[in-house]
Amino acid sequence: MKTYLDCIPCFFRQGLDAARLATQDKVKQKKVLDEIATMIPHLSLNSTPPEMGRIIHATIRKFTNSTDPYKKVKEKYNKIALKLYPRLKEEVKRSNDPLLVAIRIAIAGNTIDFGVSSKVNIEKELKNILKQDFAIFDYQDFKNALKGTDEIVYIADNAGEVVFDRVLVEQLNKKVIYVVRDKPIINDATIEDALFCKINEVAKVISSGCDAPGVILRYCSDEFLNYYTRAKLIISKGQGNYETLSEEKRPVFFLLKAKCPIIARDLNCTEGDIILKYNLKVSKNKGEVCQ
Amino acid sequence: MKTYLDCIPCFFRQGLDAARLATQDKVKQKKVLDEIATMIPHLSLNSTPPEMGRIIHATIRKFTNSTDPYKKVKEKYNKIALKLYPRLKEEVKRSNDPLLVAIRIAIAGNTIDFGVSSKVNIEKELKNILKQDFAIFDYQDFKNALKGTDEIVYIADNAGEVVFDRVLVEQLNKKVIYVVRDKPIINDATIEDALFCKINEVAKVISSGCDAPGVILRYCSDEFLNYYTRAKLIISKGQGNYETLSEEKRPVFFLLKAKCPIIARDLNCTEGDIILKYNLKVSKNKGEVCQ
Repeated sequence: MKTYLDCIPCFFRQGLDAARLATQDKVKQKKVLDEIATMIPHLSLNSTPPEMGRIIHATIRKFTNSTDPYKKVKEKYNKIALKLYPRLKEEVKRSNDPLLVAIRIAIAGNTIDFGVSSKVNIEKELKNILKQDFAIFDYQDFKNALKGTDEIVYIADNAGEVVFDRVLVEQLNKKVIYVVRDKPIINDATIEDALFCKINEVAKVISSGCDAPGVILRYCSDEFLNYYTRAKLIISKGQGNYETLSEEKRPVFFLLKAKCPIIARDLNCTEGDIILKYNLKVSKNKGEVCQ
Repeated sequence: MKTYLDCIPCFFRQGLDAARLATQDKVKQKKVLDEIATMIPHLSLNSTPPEMGRIIHATIRKFTNSTDPYKKVKEKYNKIALKLYPRLKEEVKRSNDPLLVAIRIAIAGNTIDFGVSSKVNIEKELKNILKQDFAIFDYQDFKNALKGTDEIVYIADNAGEVVFDRVLVEQLNKKVIYVVRDKPIINDATIEDALFCKINEVAKVISSGCDAPGVILRYCSDEFLNYYTRAKLIISKGQGNYETLSEEKRPVFFLLKAKCPIIARDLNCTEGDIILKYNLKVSKNKGEVCQ
């Protein structure tokens, strides 16, 4: 997904949110916004939003001397999510379609996203998403792809969400390569979060090699790219990964909740919708399912 | 009111909204945002937000060759409001407290504000505001001030809203100097809008001399300043005028709906609240009325 002009005000909002977490010094907070401002005239609208996100958060680290402003909130949501784990497993166990419930749970976990908003009510979101209709629902394609592969590349999004992903990974019952960010950025999951949430017990955890809030392939490690290019089924969680991979001709399934109006527009759906979208699906998808 | 850091993302949102009204050329729209970006490092947080608003809209005029992007929507809302006029008068007539209802109507008119949002439902807002509790309610001070003066300076905000103001002006039953912006900016009322809405039949209409979306005194004309400095009662409509006059030690009554979270915070109230605030009131006001 290219950068829309509407993303520009949002870059400043994201920068301000993160700067406030990193420092209480208003002069430094303003300095961060000034730096973002100096980048805007050089911003190409052909780049994806996480490319700018990567630069914004590098600026915050530079001007606030904080390498990980979201460390505390990530720890908080990792702990909250871990406590929810038995309940999530229970939801899957008592379902007639455990795979679908596990997918819904993985999407519910995606509501933990401080790139979009710093307020989140996981329990409420979980309850809603367990019964919400999908706006795009390529479930049959997903089941077909699952049958046809032994190895799945699963690209993670946020800390905390990892626990919800673990529920889906366990349900997939295949070899899973669980891919996290290379360095802390916003509240995205890193190796540390993956281990804290114990997903390493059911998947091989690797870093993408990229420190953007998405997967920018030219910054990714050879290790990740090897898995990525041979994969017959790739699960991509959340908006940042959608933004960077939506134009890739790869067998990617996007699992996300459309939390921003611009991404909703790009997906031809409505803000708040939940999505299971197959990237190689013939285009009739949009018109049919998402009015 | 000083500029808060939260105003910065909003400057870009406002700039984009106006640029889109002025031109469909995305390159020009981006150029407007680039120009706003170059100003941010020079922006003093001690200035009021309309000072930046003034520069932003000058930029839009410069890069899009459009002197009045909001001309059509202003005309539209002037016409809608004029049609509502008999109904507004009826509301006042059948009330036990016609002055208060006229104040409520003037505030309802203030929902026509494209600086905040481009979507508005006047009829719904009117219905709500006629019964909504005030978060700050210096009505007794207002009545006292009204008794003690023969001349009122009434600082207008938006086109369309002028019709609603006219209802209040008629109820005041005093000599009223109705002050509009010097040049088109956002959907703020100018002399042309005032005449279209026929408020000149019940008030003396003048320009402030200032082309900002607020009243920046150092840019105002001598004519306006003469009225302003001698006034015993000044009515200030809307957020832009509040932003520029809130720190003035003058007998200003602010009539507005708090439509942005930052102004709500500055007023110590909640977004969506309606306000009748006396600027010279002893400070206990906030703590008492607005929890």
